[in-house]
Parts: sequence; C-alpha cells; structure tokens
Amino acid sequence: MDSRQLLVDTMSELMWERGYADTSPRHVRERSGVGQGSMYHHFPTKRDLALAALERNVQDLLPATSELDGQGDPMTRIEAYLMRPRAALKGCKVGRMTQDPQVREDPVLLAPVARAFAQVHDSWVRVLREAVAAGQLRADLDTERLAHTLMAVLQGGYVLAIAQQDPGPFDDARAGALDLLRAAAPSHQNTGRTA
Amino acid sequence: MDSRQLLVDTMSELMWERGYADTSPRHVRERSGVGQGSMYHHFPTKRDLALAALERNVQDLLPATSELDGQGDPMTRIEAYLMRPRAALKGCKVGRMTQDPQVREDPVLLAPVARAFAQVHDSWVRVLREAVAAGQLRADLDTERLAHTLMAVLQGGYVLAIAQQDPGPFDDARAGALDLLRAAAPSHQNTGRTA
Repeated sequence: MDSRQLLVDTMSELMWERGYADTSPRHVRERSGVGQGSMYHHFPTKRDLALAALERNVQDLLPATSELDGQGDPMTRIEAYLMRPRAALKGCKVGRMTQDPQVREDPVLLAPVARAFAQVHDSWVRVLREAVAAGQLRADLDTERLAHTLMAVLQGGYVLAIAQQDPGPFDDARAGALDLLRAAAPSHQNTGRTA
Repeated sequence: MDSRQLLVDTMSELMWERGYADTSPRHVRERSGVGQGSMYHHFPTKRDLALAALERNVQDLLPATSELDGQGDPMTRIEAYLMRPRAALKGCKVGRMTQDPQVREDPVLLAPVARAFAQVHDSWVRVLREAVAAGQLRADLDTERLAHTLMAVLQGGYVLAIAQQDPGPFDDARAGALDLLRAAAPSHQNTGRTA
C-alpha cells in the first residue's frame, strides 16, 4: 500500500477511535510508520488528512445502500436495508462525525458527510415512492419526510445502543419502524410481524 | 454561585463545545475563574468533574419529558413532545456523549446517560400504551419497541440536521414519525396532517 493510502486509512481509524481533537499527526505517524517528510508532502495539515479520511469513510458507506437501490419488491428491499447486520455498538462512521466538536464546526469537513446523507436520502425516497406505487404504503404519506424519519431511526438507534452498551435498543428501533411502515399499508395488509 | 457548582457548569459547557478529550482542567479553571486548589479539593480528577457535569446534563434533560408524563389525550401529548421547539443544530447534550470517544469507553461516565435514556423510554412506553388503550394506535403494535423507534427519531434527527447544517431534516424526521403514528391508527382515523 502506498504511504498516502496508509496515512488516510490510519487517520480514518484514529478519528473513529479517539475523535479528531485527540488525534495528533504524531499518532498517525507512529501507527502508520510513515515518516514526517512523506506525511507533510501528502498532507500539509492535520485538517487536510482528516478531509481525505472523511472522504474515504463516505466511500465505505455508500455501497451500503445497494439494497435500497436494487430491483424487486420495495418493502422487501426496505426490510433488507433496515434489518441487515450492523455493528450497533460501533455506530456509523459517517454520522458520528457530526458529533465531533471540531468537525461539526468546520464546513469543509462536514461537506462529505452532508453529501453522503443527501445521497442516502435520495435512495430512500426512490424506494418509498416505489412502495407507494406498489400499494404497499398509503399514497398520502410524504416520502421525502419519511426518508428522513427512517434515516434518523438508524442514526439514533446507534446512540441508544451505545448509551446502554446493548444492541437491543438499536434492533428495537428499526423493528419498530418496520412495524409502523406495515401498519401504514393502505388496507392494513398484514404482511406478518418481525420476530 | 459556589465554586463547585461553577466548575460543574463550566465543565458541562466545555464538554458540549469541545468534547471531553479536548477539555483540560486548565480550560475549566480559566473559564470559571476557580483556582487550582479549590478545583482539586472538589474534583481530584478531570473524570470526577466530567461525571458531575454529565449528572447535571441529565438533570436538565429529564424534566423535558413532562409532555409525555402529563394528563390528557395521549396522541396530543405525543405530538407536543415530538414537535416542541428543539435546537436541532446543537443536538442533545446527553445523547451526544455516546459519540465522545473517551466517554463511550468509560462505563462510569456512560452510566448517567444510560439511566436518563431508560427513564425517557419508560415515559414513552406509558404514553404509547395509553394511546393504544384510547384506540389511537393499533393494539398489535409493540410499544416497548416503538418507544425506542421514537427516541431514535429524535436522536438521529439531530445527526441529520447537523450534517446538513439545516434544521429541516430534523423537522422532517419527527413530522414523518407523526405521519406514521397517525397512519397506524386502528381504523385509519384521519386526525389531520401536520403542516
């Protein structure tokens, strides 16, 4: 792996483990084994490196919407996306950055996070519209709004799980969202409850 | 105000602004004007002070469930709690601590956060059960689960709003949750859409 990539991967790990404020260029050099000259050649400032690390985290996140973007029955895709295995106690690498004090005050560092969420929102809106068109959701639901609700369920579920150090509240939150979506079918079609 | 209280209030502010890792005892002394001797008398370590600050934040949060715990029509109370003015771009002082790397790894610091969320969950379960009993929500909904869904909508809504630097996604997320709750009425009672 080249030293630039190694620096970015290491910064991504350290921001994840320690946050931005508490990660120093020296930590990055020590863990990556990349020398000071090479580091400053690629990234003149810690912020430059953090931006590259955030861009990398976003690239990791986006393929995850493949269930939403796929083909086939919309509610099945929604369920697959909501319920697939997620590391509840680790949280979302991208969403978590909004709570890092120095990141949230820096528009440049927040930009990749904002872009990623906008893209996930688009995927949600598309699949929800397909569910309405397929008669699986009431036509009077505002799909733009509902897309934010469902994104918030996942992001907030991580917060609840970490607080309790238990994945239970995360699993409850998403299963409860699925219960509500099913209850919001036009004619109360009973498609079964999740376990 | 006594120096102990001043230290706790200052630590609460600084953890909010800068996070735990980036807040030093010196920052606290400089902002509070409390001397080193007095500080170490009250709080031998930064962690002792952080714990007191977290307990204080929890005390600030809990009266906020008064809408849920009140009397009167359950769905009206649910709507009042979900939709009341909240500083979307600041986030939840308590929930945010789960994303602070050093806090989330410290069971003692997480304990007040876990306790606060457990108490909010109890309030949610009670009002949701009342809504079921009043015929406002389908009786087959799992209220324990749904309580976590609705807590997650608020916690996750903050994440989305901060990412976009726009309260819109937060307001969407909670309004969308209310839409779903109304759609989950036993007989599709149309109680009106939120604006």
